[in-house]
Amino acid sequence: MSLPSSGLDPDVARRLKRDANGLFPAVVQQYDSGQVLMLAWMDDEALHRTLTTGRATYWSRSRGEYWVKGETSGHVQWVRSVALDCDGDTVLLKVDQVGPACHTGQPTCFAGRELVTSADPSTLAAGQPAPAAVPGTGDRDDDR
Amino acid sequence: MSLPSSGLDPDVARRLKRDANGLFPAVVQQYDSGQVLMLAWMDDEALHRTLTTGRATYWSRSRGEYWVKGETSGHVQWVRSVALDCDGDTVLLKVDQVGPACHTGQPTCFAGRELVTSADPSTLAAGQPAPAAVPGTGDRDDDR
Repeated sequence: MSLPSSGLDPDVARRLKRDANGLFPAVVQQYDSGQVLMLAWMDDEALHRTLTTGRATYWSRSRGEYWVKGETSGHVQWVRSVALDCDGDTVLLKVDQVGPACHTGQPTCFAGRELVTSADPSTLAAGQPAPAAVPGTGDRDDDR
Repeated sequence: MSLPSSGLDPDVARRLKRDANGLFPAVVQQYDSGQVLMLAWMDDEALHRTLTTGRATYWSRSRGEYWVKGETSGHVQWVRSVALDCDGDTVLLKVDQVGPACHTGQPTCFAGRELVTSADPSTLAAGQPAPAAVPGTGDRDDDR
């Protein structure tokens, strides 16, 4: 399979797994507070630009163009680090976010948007003991 | 459009945006340290089970089945909160992770997997002033 043409380091490109549209998700986290700010999408070139410019750059699925975060709003993300996960299909960006990350003006795209869980809170708060690993069945947690 | 059949609260189901396979990404974060542990995929039923059992449950794309994290390894994720993002296409799970989150034995799927950035480190460390917002152009940051 030929890889998509982009300026991305071929060693990184070889490790990437992309969806049918050539994209992969980027989880974006504030580097110091640990807040998860948002999730966006990248292709190889967006990752290349992010790594080389230090400004978080995504692929806009709705507009079909590259999107430098904050280009019009000023709410830039300065990149502190980028990591590729164990199976090469997700990146984690640690950034320094200028202003709110969300277009709604909220600091993150998840702020104030919690769903109600109906699991027993006392169970969760107490933290049940973990079920014992089942010997001989292997660890099937190797699938994202 | 009829919604997929699942036990999920219809009010939540109406807010969800799914990909062509009926899936959406779940970002998983350790609730107290803020570490991003992994990214997995859910459908409506996986989200329903996660909300009602308090154990993180995903859809395994490779095995084509529901996957209760830690079912075989013991490395369970006890759910503390679940939030849906501003455009309804990503969830953020805050969990209490038992043992390592990654099947490699690393605490997270991103640990030790940083890519080299070639942006000028002094620029990033100093934090350049944000570009001024362009008046009248609107904020196009409303696209994940």
